[in-house]
Amino acid sequence: MRFDPSNLKFDNKGLIPAIAQQEGTGEVLMMAWMNAASIEKTLETGHVTYWSRSRQSFWAKGESSGHVQKLVELRVDCDRDCLLLIVDQTGPACHTNRRNCFYTAVRDGEEVVIADPMV
Amino acid sequence: MRFDPSNLKFDNKGLIPAIAQQEGTGEVLMMAWMNAASIEKTLETGHVTYWSRSRQSFWAKGESSGHVQKLVELRVDCDRDCLLLIVDQTGPACHTNRRNCFYTAVRDGEEVVIADPMV
Repeated sequence: MRFDPSNLKFDNKGLIPAIAQQEGTGEVLMMAWMNAASIEKTLETGHVTYWSRSRQSFWAKGESSGHVQKLVELRVDCDRDCLLLIVDQTGPACHTNRRNCFYTAVRDGEEVVIADPMV
Repeated sequence: MRFDPSNLKFDNKGLIPAIAQQEGTGEVLMMAWMNAASIEKTLETGHVTYWSRSRQSFWAKGESSGHVQKLVELRVDCDRDCLLLIVDQTGPACHTNRRNCFYTAVRDGEEVVIADPMV
């Protein structure tokens, strides 16, 4: 079947969550949002472009920082309401300069920072 | 800092997306939603409990199927609006009986099924 972004299930703002995972290591880097047009841009360019909810505009990942995400493969879940992006991430994915955004763990009821910013 | 689910950023329905990842292999199994009470239940019981948006009730993963997710670690992202659950999944995570929900890949513009149901 031909892939058509308009056949996905978007929320009432026209958005779908997209999880970025590093190829090879399986590290979950981040989660952000896409709309149909950003999915099309991502497939066309081979570089991941999200939709920024705060700026209400395209967010070509790494455009200013250089920390681009090269798309390796886009996958759709069973309910068609979530995407998994297999990517090759240059440098940190997180705006805190950490490799991934999930650097706070809950251990014995306490929040523990488990990763440092990249140098 | 003591972890308090009420300090997370929930959407306007009181929900936060939660990504389940298999410990060890790094396989991304599924994405579902939690509210503050389901997070508390998950931490208390050590078994992942989501919030079912369709049924508007707790969804103790595997309660009827036996395909439980044992929580290994809960992580919070930099924006506090997404969770990563490191889990130990018994059997398939997906209701299609596949190990994970992301079994449809987009390759050369076509949707390709890349995993079979478990037997």
